[in-house]
This record gives sequence, structure tokens and C-alpha cells, in this order.
Amino acid sequence: MFFHKKEPIHVVNIKEPNPRFAQLLLEQFGGATGELSAALQYWVQSFHVENAGIRDMLQDIAIEEFGHLEMVGKMIEAHTKNVDQTDAYKSTLFAVRGMGPHFLDSQGNAWTASYLNEGGDVVRDLRANIAAEAGARQTYEELIKLSTDEGTKNALVHLLTREISHTQMFMKALDSMGKLTEPFFGNIQPDETVDIYYNLSTNGTQDERGPWNAEPSFRYIADPVNEVTKG
Amino acid sequence: MFFHKKEPIHVVNIKEPNPRFAQLLLEQFGGATGELSAALQYWVQSFHVENAGIRDMLQDIAIEEFGHLEMVGKMIEAHTKNVDQTDAYKSTLFAVRGMGPHFLDSQGNAWTASYLNEGGDVVRDLRANIAAEAGARQTYEELIKLSTDEGTKNALVHLLTREISHTQMFMKALDSMGKLTEPFFGNIQPDETVDIYYNLSTNGTQDERGPWNAEPSFRYIADPVNEVTKG
Amino acid sequence: MFFHKKEPIHVVNIKEPNPRFAQLLLEQFGGATGELSAALQYWVQSFHVENAGIRDMLQDIAIEEFGHLEMVGKMIEAHTKNVDQTDAYKSTLFAVRGMGPHFLDSQGNAWTASYLNEGGDVVRDLRANIAAEAGARQTYEELIKLSTDEGTKNALVHLLTREISHTQMFMKALDSMGKLTEPFFGNIQPDETVDIYYNLSTNGTQDERGPWNAEPSFRYIADPVNEVTKG
Amino acid sequence: MFFHKKEPIHVVNIKEPNPRFAQLLLEQFGGATGELSAALQYWVQSFHVENAGIRDMLQDIAIEEFGHLEMVGKMIEAHTKNVDQTDAYKSTLFAVRGMGPHFLDSQGNAWTASYLNEGGDVVRDLRANIAAEAGARQTYEELIKLSTDEGTKNALVHLLTREISHTQMFMKALDSMGKLTEPFFGNIQPDETVDIYYNLSTNGTQDERGPWNAEPSFRYIADPVNEVTKG
Amino acid sequence: MFFHKKEPIHVVNIKEPNPRFAQLLLEQFGGATGELSAALQYWVQSFHVENAGIRDMLQDIAIEEFGHLEMVGKMIEAHTKNVDQTDAYKSTLFAVRGMGPHFLDSQGNAWTASYLNEGGDVVRDLRANIAAEAGARQTYEELIKLSTDEGTKNALVHLLTREISHTQMFMKALDSMGKLTEPFFGNIQPDETVDIYYNLSTNGTQDERGPWNAEPSFRYIADPVNEVTKG
Amino acid sequence: MFFHKKEPIHVVNIKEPNPRFAQLLLEQFGGATGELSAALQYWVQSFHVENAGIRDMLQDIAIEEFGHLEMVGKMIEAHTKNVDQTDAYKSTLFAVRGMGPHFLDSQGNAWTASYLNEGGDVVRDLRANIAAEAGARQTYEELIKLSTDEGTKNALVHLLTREISHTQMFMKALDSMGKLTEPFFGNIQPDETVDIYYNLSTNGTQDERGPWNAEPSFRYIADPVNEVTKG
Repeated sequence: MFFHKKEPIHVVNIKEPNPRFAQLLLEQFGGATGELSAALQYWVQSFHVENAGIRDMLQDIAIEEFGHLEMVGKMIEAHTKNVDQTDAYKSTLFAVRGMGPHFLDSQGNAWTASYLNEGGDVVRDLRANIAAEAGARQTYEELIKLSTDEGTKNALVHLLTREISHTQMFMKALDSMGKLTEPFFGNIQPDETVDIYYNLSTNGTQDERGPWNAEPSFRYIADPVNEVTKG
Repeated sequence: MFFHKKEPIHVVNIKEPNPRFAQLLLEQFGGATGELSAALQYWVQSFHVENAGIRDMLQDIAIEEFGHLEMVGKMIEAHTKNVDQTDAYKSTLFAVRGMGPHFLDSQGNAWTASYLNEGGDVVRDLRANIAAEAGARQTYEELIKLSTDEGTKNALVHLLTREISHTQMFMKALDSMGKLTEPFFGNIQPDETVDIYYNLSTNGTQDERGPWNAEPSFRYIADPVNEVTKG
Repeated sequence: MFFHKKEPIHVVNIKEPNPRFAQLLLEQFGGATGELSAALQYWVQSFHVENAGIRDMLQDIAIEEFGHLEMVGKMIEAHTKNVDQTDAYKSTLFAVRGMGPHFLDSQGNAWTASYLNEGGDVVRDLRANIAAEAGARQTYEELIKLSTDEGTKNALVHLLTREISHTQMFMKALDSMGKLTEPFFGNIQPDETVDIYYNLSTNGTQDERGPWNAEPSFRYIADPVNEVTKG
Repeated sequence: MFFHKKEPIHVVNIKEPNPRFAQLLLEQFGGATGELSAALQYWVQSFHVENAGIRDMLQDIAIEEFGHLEMVGKMIEAHTKNVDQTDAYKSTLFAVRGMGPHFLDSQGNAWTASYLNEGGDVVRDLRANIAAEAGARQTYEELIKLSTDEGTKNALVHLLTREISHTQMFMKALDSMGKLTEPFFGNIQPDETVDIYYNLSTNGTQDERGPWNAEPSFRYIADPVNEVTKG
Repeated sequence: MFFHKKEPIHVVNIKEPNPRFAQLLLEQFGGATGELSAALQYWVQSFHVENAGIRDMLQDIAIEEFGHLEMVGKMIEAHTKNVDQTDAYKSTLFAVRGMGPHFLDSQGNAWTASYLNEGGDVVRDLRANIAAEAGARQTYEELIKLSTDEGTKNALVHLLTREISHTQMFMKALDSMGKLTEPFFGNIQPDETVDIYYNLSTNGTQDERGPWNAEPSFRYIADPVNEVTKG
Repeated sequence: MFFHKKEPIHVVNIKEPNPRFAQLLLEQFGGATGELSAALQYWVQSFHVENAGIRDMLQDIAIEEFGHLEMVGKMIEAHTKNVDQTDAYKSTLFAVRGMGPHFLDSQGNAWTASYLNEGGDVVRDLRANIAAEAGARQTYEELIKLSTDEGTKNALVHLLTREISHTQMFMKALDSMGKLTEPFFGNIQPDETVDIYYNLSTNGTQDERGPWNAEPSFRYIADPVNEVTKG
């Protein structure tokens, strides 16, 4: 059962409304990396996760993300509501769609559940969540770089901060299952090719190497064209 | 520059064609967790990644995923091509769309780049890739459980295996940057709320606790309704 | 700020799990007429509505719809979780996507914000909401007709009931502005064609007539081919 | 059977071509609130509506909407065709997609049938249509405010006018069934919660009240957190 | 300006209603290769085509396609309306969405203007139309093969026939511009690589050859790996 | 099995980076007429085409298109990577999504497999491919007209050139089957209406005529309203 208090979870205080920036902010309201994606992904996962503690964590964080969605919505409202119908406003999608937030991204695309990654296994879910937080953090960084209003920046830094907090929580949860640094999970045993690295993209001379294809963790196949297709 | 050899990267040998199973296989051809998603996500990342070694790794794995896409396509072809126009075939989407693979998932949805998670930072990209691999692995496990043909199962186990291999590679790359177990990345410092855990979903009695909200890593706010909105 | 209690807003008590019916239920979880559409539409409207009372009403109802979304999610969970991996389960999308709810409709389409109708004017919003409730009610009626489990039926009847309650609220709000039975709203005066009815689809003999094209409310143009294009 | 005359249903006479405005006009050609949405929604409803008169009304209005779609298309053609390849043109989507209308909205999104609301019951359909008209009217108002060309404005005022005319027709039809001011319709009786109002969003002090939650029409639950989850 | 007569452009006479077949028929109502795609593609092209004769042809055929859309709609209506709520009906999307046509394909996907191919040049448009007709014809063939009702088959054969008729018209139009068998069109001269054939997919032994890579029309590059990247 | 060499298939040499032009270039990376569409359409067709030579041709061209996709990606990388965070960059989608290519079009829409036209018959496939090439060529022409950088123009002219080359190959393949200038293909015989032309869109006076509705190829029905519906 959901409840709502009108006071936001964190202060939102916009000094200089800027409808063009409001359009960029849509990225975190109705965009792929936005708060709706986070809230719905974590919450829908909670229905199939068996571990009661992790289920509760997913719900706690999901509800916080709804609160963040509200914060972003309030920022967009403030950046579009108290402005004259100036040229800045007229050049945004708010001019035809109306002021305030919409479930669109900064390019005007409607939010879609295709953004979500969830289902069937809690390890998959938690890895998906760390990725979702990374995307959200990245977008907040870009928005902070593009923002000129202090109140907006402060709110965005808080929102970015909380993505790191959530990442920490998801990492702790994965670690409690021994799956933070272990690639394997689930019930199907891999076959004997699990440690092969195929050098399928070549530069004609010496290919780059790194820990991601070094022995003894990996067997490096330097010339798969001949080694695979002829062996 | 791309090249192609007609021999697949791994043997595909279907004994008992089953068009209904072929429709499920579409999930890994044109679905969210499928090989096209993996191939395109890793490959498009390689254009903006600065580190030459990781850029090369992304290309190597992307090219392998194109080869896996081909394997899944060949499986779907084999499961739909050499069958009479039986009732099994007629009850699938192949009856109206034609035999062989299509860039659809098992529910008939067209593949969309909304499935991809990439951009702006290599840490974000690599975390997104670990999540993509987890989703792919999960779907392969479900397909293996649903499959009754040995040749199909063997090919699917190989494909599942390689998702684990790639996860290992992405983890090694993240670890080489110190970002496998570290939540923070990027250029914006978090604010002072970074270690707070908000208990926003409650069960009326005693809420679950775990390493994801335990001290000293986290400050646990048990009653945010009162503590946040009134402080 | 959002909060959550684990107890649902209304009892959900499924006796006979049926994964095929669970797939139909997705229509009201991640479908066009579902609870997510309602919750997000009303809530996003609240950001631009000036009237404080109607703004509050939109938030009250939106939060209730989130609670309804949770109820539908719990029903889907119950219809897919406590079942053997029987043929019924295997023939549903849960077999490849995992048990529990997903933000898909019964045909497997990802939820999209294209379903929403909102923006710019409270009259438009409230009319959109009455339409949304009508769509939701219609789908619940079809689901009730298709259901064989008493607990499921009872929960669905409650959800259908509340759509009627919300319709009543939206109608009262429109009526308080004098816009429940008045076509006109907004700031642009219509031109002189406002009372014309064009009989553009004809059956060769006598066309149907009704209050929607009767005098004195309407001027009926029986033969627009000649009257419009030649006048 | 459809027929077409090349003369438009209403005069379109553009004096000052403006490709940027043409892009905004796409909102009513290939956008959610546009004429294609209206035409197709009313027309597809006519196939399942039993009442011959209302069926005919839906067809008459649908055909008029096709004529309006043509008018909007002609406006877009005029605003993009007779212009030099100036900077204004180059900054629009017409520069890469070609002059003239496309089934896109002002943000470049392809039209989708997800915009439509129809099916199963004529009351649901008619309520959906009143909502569709309200959305269309709202967008026309925004476009009229943004337009500087007299001929364009006149055509847009006509189109806005006709949305009001159609609203009147749909209201008359609903009224003829007694469903214009009556929330209930269909075959399922609501349960005993039908008159409850849940005050789920609170502001900490005194919540707003209005006819939408006033007695005797409604029973107001001021504190659902305690009253619902503990009763 | 559009007009409509209730009599369809060709007889539709269904003897044995079959809701499952009705779902397949949706492919040609709201699917990629369906009549809506054809009608809207040709009609939207007519706004930017300069040649008055071809513009008129596009409109004539577009209007016929609207009439065909109506025929398919009437077939779907007949296959879903006069049937009991039998198991056949219950297993289709009509059970939750309501009887009669919807702008969905046989897999339940909403129609999208992403299916359309048009813009900027009449040669491109006409080639796109020949392709659209080929897709439509192919789907009709599959539907005819799957149909067991004579009346349905007859109507489908007529619709398939007309796709061939339209193909003939589009070919004649292209031929009148000398572009039916000439690859080149437009204003940009190709560079010197125009006659090269790159043998980029190899089978290890002898690659297939044909008129599409034969001299003197083409210069065949047998080993582009070495010839391109090293030259 | 796929392979990759880091050297592109054709030189890409950008002198004057322009992020706004980079956004337009996205049209051919992740847009409807772009290289991903071409590569995936031809490649997926190859799985169901029986003729070994044409199957090989489809693979050869598909692999070349992947190489072209890489070229466009490298152009976008060059136009966004080596630029200061200037206003030009900030006004593009790269400012929030990150530099380098993304699978979006110039309007920010995610690529979708709904763009593809393929399945069931090689004639349909090849006609679809000629249409795809025509769309790609058209977009390249618009981009060349909008480009001011010589290196960019040269690369684009090469890409446009190859679309003509591929058109030539597809035409040769169709011609080898006798289907380049023959409307009919497949297994269903058309009915007796195959040569009728319906004059459904009229201008009140004298309609345009041309080879597409001239005798003896066509029987021209000048007044279908009366001739069809009354005969």
C-alpha cells in the first residue's frame, strides 16, 4: 500500500527557471536512465525475489526512487511554470505539450518498459540494478555540468549521491551471496570453453592485451579464423 | 571492417525441429536479452572508450556476439525450415511472417535500441555489460530448461557459457580500474547523505535488515516519514 | 515523498493459481488500460494543475492506483509462483521471462507512456481521466468474465468498483467547473461552423439520425460532397 | 468504401511559410492528439458498436477527421514547400526527411496506435472520444498561440472549433444512453467500497476538500494508513 | 476531402467465423504489411510529389487501400462478432480487447508509422511502394494458405490481386521516368567504386557467383581483406 | 562467423568537427534508412533464402553494410570527440547521452526492427532491398547537401555510391528470376480485377492520366462510386 506526503524527500529550490534545461531534466523523469526506470525496476523485482531481506531492500530503494522522481518533477515544474512565454519556453516541447513534467526524455521519446532489466533470478536483478544506477549517475553528471542554477545543481548532486548509495547497497547484497566478483551464477554448468578469449577484432599488427584476456584466467586464441573454423 | 565466414563459431546441430521452441529462441535473436543487444551494445561503446585495450576487448566480444547471433539464427532456421506445415508451425508467428529468424522476441515485439545501456563513461558501460550478460544468461537457462533436443541444448549451453566468460572479462576490466567493488566513479563528489539508508517500506512490525543497511557502512533511518519530513 | 506499507490496500487471496490467467492480468499491470497508466497519468497531471483541491485529488487517486498496481502484481505473483512448472506455465511468457509481474500487457508489449493523455489544461486532464477509467473498467469486466477463481474475481470486482468511484470523483470535479456537460473549454472562441454536422458517410438510402445531429443543436449537412466543395 | 475529392473540407491559405512552425504542426498530423488518432479511433470503434445511429455518427466524424488530417497536411506542405533551403528549413526535421507532412509528431516520434483508446463497449468508446477531442483542442490552442500567420490561425481555429462540435455530438450520444453524468456502466455491479474516498496524499496539516470527496456522495477516509491496514 | 459509402469496395461474405483466424487477419489491418501501412504511405507521399499525374495515382491507390482496410476490418468483425464466447474466442486477444478490428498485428503489436518508407524523392517513394506491395502480397499468400473459409479466401484473393495491380501501376510510373531498371536516381554522382563487388562473406572454398557480381557490370574483389585494407 | 579488422572499409577523414552535423549523421547510424537497417535486413533474409547464390550475395552486401555502419560511427565519433564542450555540442543530444554514435536517429528515436521488410519469399525480399537502398540514398543526398566538410562529403558520396551499387546487384538478381519488371510473383493466381484502375480521388473536372492507368494494360473505372457500389 502506497502513501504520499506532499513535502519532498529532499529540498528543491530553483532560483533561475530555465525551460531549456527543464527539457534536459526530462531525461531523468521519463528517460531511460531516469527515476521512473529505477523505481519500477526495483519494485517489480521485489515480487519474485525470495529472500525477504533483499525483497525489502528493493522496496525501500524503489520507494525512495519514487520520491526522487517527484523531486525531478518538481524541478521541471519550477523551470517551466514561473516563466513568461518567452522564446526559451517556446523552443521547448513544453510549448506544445504544456508546462510541468511529462513521461518523456529530453528528445521527446515516451518512456517505455523496454528500458527495464529484470526477471527470474536475484543475481541478475542486482547486477541490472548496479547498471541502472551507473546509467543514472552518468546522466546526472552530464546534467550537473550543463546546469547554471545553484539550487538545481544541489538537488542534482543529492540525486547523484543517492545513486552511489544504492550502488553500495546492491553491491553489499550481491557480496552477501558471493556474487559481486564471481561471474558464475544459476544452475547450469558452463562447458569447457569458459576460459577462452577470441581475438576476433584485429589491427593487423599487435593487438592490445590486458587482465581481461591474460593467462592463467584466460586461454587467448590469437587467430580464431584459422583456429576455430579449421579445427 | 567486417568479414564473415559461413562456418559458424560453434557447431549447431538440431535433431528434432520444433517451431514452437523456435519462437522461444527468438528471445535471444531479437529480444531484450538477446545476442543482437549484446553485440550492438559492446560495439557502440567501443567508439567512445578511450582506453585502447578495453576498446579492443569490447570489439572482440562484440564480434563474438555477432557470431552467436548467427548461431541462434541457424537454430531458428533449422527449427522452422525442415518441418511440414504442421499444426505446430501454424501456431507460431512463422506461419504468417515466414520461416527463419526475425528481429522479434518470443512475444513478437520488434527489437529496439531502447534495450541498450551505454554512453559517456567506461565504468558505466562495463557495469551495463555485466548486467546484459546476466540477463542473457538467465534467458538461456530458461530456454535450456524448456528444450528437449540435445543438439539445441548443447548449443545453448555453449552460449550460456560464453556469457559467463564475458562477465569474467568485464569484471577483470572493471577490477583493473578499481571499480568492481567500489560504488563511486566519475567526477562529481557525493554529498553527506551517501551513507543513509531510508526504511521507506515497512511491514508494521520488525523490518528485515542485512549487510545492505548495516552499520558502519550505512546510517539506518528507521522512520523517514517523521525524521525526514519533520527535520 | 512516498511511503509504503507491505499490507495491500485490499485483500488478495488466490485459491487456484492459473498462469494463463496471470498473463491476461498483465493487461492491468503493464497494459494500456492498466493501473500503471492510471497512477502515472493522474500523478503527472498534479504537477501542472493550479487548483489546490483538484491537485490533491489527483494525488490521492494516483496513490490509490499505485496500491491497485500492487494488488494486481500480487495476483500475478500468486498465479505464477506457487505452481509446478506445468504445461500451463510453459505456455505463458513467464516461462522465459520469469515468474511474477512484468511491465508488459497480455500480448507481451512493454508499457509505454504513449498511453497517457495529459497536459496544459485541467479540463482536458479530467476528461482524459474519465476515459482512462472507462478503459480500465472495461478490461476488468472482460477479466472477471474470463476468471474462474473466486478470490481473483473478488479482487477484480473491487478494482472495477474503484474505477467507478474515481469516475464519480472526476465527474464531480468537472461539474464544479461547469465542464461536465459543456463541450467548450479554454481560451479560443470557436468559429461559425461549430453547430454543423457533416453527413460524410452515407448508405445510399436514408441515413441514421439521433440527438447527436438533431436540430436545433446541430445544422445537418446531408450532402457535403456538393454543399461543401461547391459552395 | 472511401472516396476523395481534391478540394479540402475547409480553406487552407498560408501566407508566410515557416518550416519551424510546420514542425510544430506535425503534432496534429502524426502526434498523439492529432487528426490521424481521431480518425482511426472513431472509425475502428464503428466496427463493434451495435447501435446503428451511433455507428453512423462515428463514421461521419471519422471521415471528417480524415479531411482535417488532409488540411493539416496541406498546411505542412505549404509551410515547407515554397521556402528556400534557408536556415529555418535546415533546422527542422524536413531537412533530412524531405518536405511535406510525415506521420511524426513535433518531436519526431512515429505515430503509434498505442495512442488509441477503444474497444468492447460504446460508453467506454464515447468517453475516450471526449478525451481525445479535449487533447486535440488543447494542442490546437497552443499552436494558435504560437502561430503568427493569419491563414494558418484561421485554419487552426476551424479545426479547434470542430473538436468542440464533435465533443458536443459525443456528449449528446452519451446523454441519450444516460451515461453523460452517470459514472456507472456495464454489467458488473460494484462492491460496497464504491463511495469511499482515500486521503492517501497528505500535507501534514489540513487537506484540501471539494465536491469530489464531500458527503453524502463520498465517505472520506482521512487516515487510510491506520484505518485500512489495521482494520 | 474524404467521403464514405457504407457498401464495401468488394464483397465480404464470411460463412464460418473463426476468431483465431481473425487474429491472424489483424496482420493486414494493423500490421506492418497491412492496408493501413499502404494507405497512409501512398497518401502521405502525394503531398510532396510534384508530378500531378503521379500525385493523383498515389491518391487513387491510397483511397482504394482505405477501402481494403475496411474490407479486412469487416472480415475481422465477422470472424469475432457472431461467435459465442467459446474457447476459440477466449484464446485470442479479442477476449480482453473486445471484438472487431484493432490497430494491432497478429502478435498484438500496435501499428507504428515506423513501418512507412517515404520522403524527398518520387523514385524513392515508388520503389518503397513496390516493396510495400510485395510485403502485403506475401502476407496475403500466407493467410490464404491458412484459411479454411471460402468467403474469406475469395476476399483475400481479391486483396492479393489488387496488390499486384498496384505493383503494375507503380512499375509503369517508374518506367515512365526510366527508373524501373536503372539503379541510379537523384542529383549526386557516384564515385569510381560503383561497379565493385566485395566478396566479404566466404565459405572457405569456391564462392557462389551470379549476374549480380558478374563482369562486365561488376568488378569482383575476391579477397577484400587483403585487397582493401592493404591497398 | 564474424571477423573484424580495425581499418575501415573506406577512408574517413574529418577536418572540421561539427556536433550538430553529427546528430544529423545519426540518421544513417540508428535511423530508419541507416546502415544498421540495411545490414540486418539483408543478413536476416539470408537465413531463409533457398538460392545459394542469392543467399551469398545477401551476406556479402550485409557484411559490407556493417562496414558502412562502422564508417558512419567513426564520422560521428570524429564530429563529437575532438571538440570543446562548446555551445554547438551542448545543443545536441550528445551533451546528455555522451559523445560518439548511438543507435538513435537524428530526432533521438531508438532504432527499431519495425523498419525492416523481409520474410517468406526472395522476390519480396529483393524488392524490399531496392526500396531500402532508395531510402538510404535519399538520406545521403540530403546529408551531402547539408554538409560543409570535404572529408565528410567524400565519405558520404562513397556511401551513397554503394547504395547504387547494391541496387544494381538486387536488380540483377531480380532480373535473373524474371521479376524486375513483372508485377506478379508467388503461388496465388490473381482474380479478374487485376487490370482495373479505380479513379477514387477526383478533382471535379478532368483527372490526370498516365501509363499507370492507360489501356490496354488497365481498365479505367472513371466513376467507381456509381460503377462499383451499384453494379
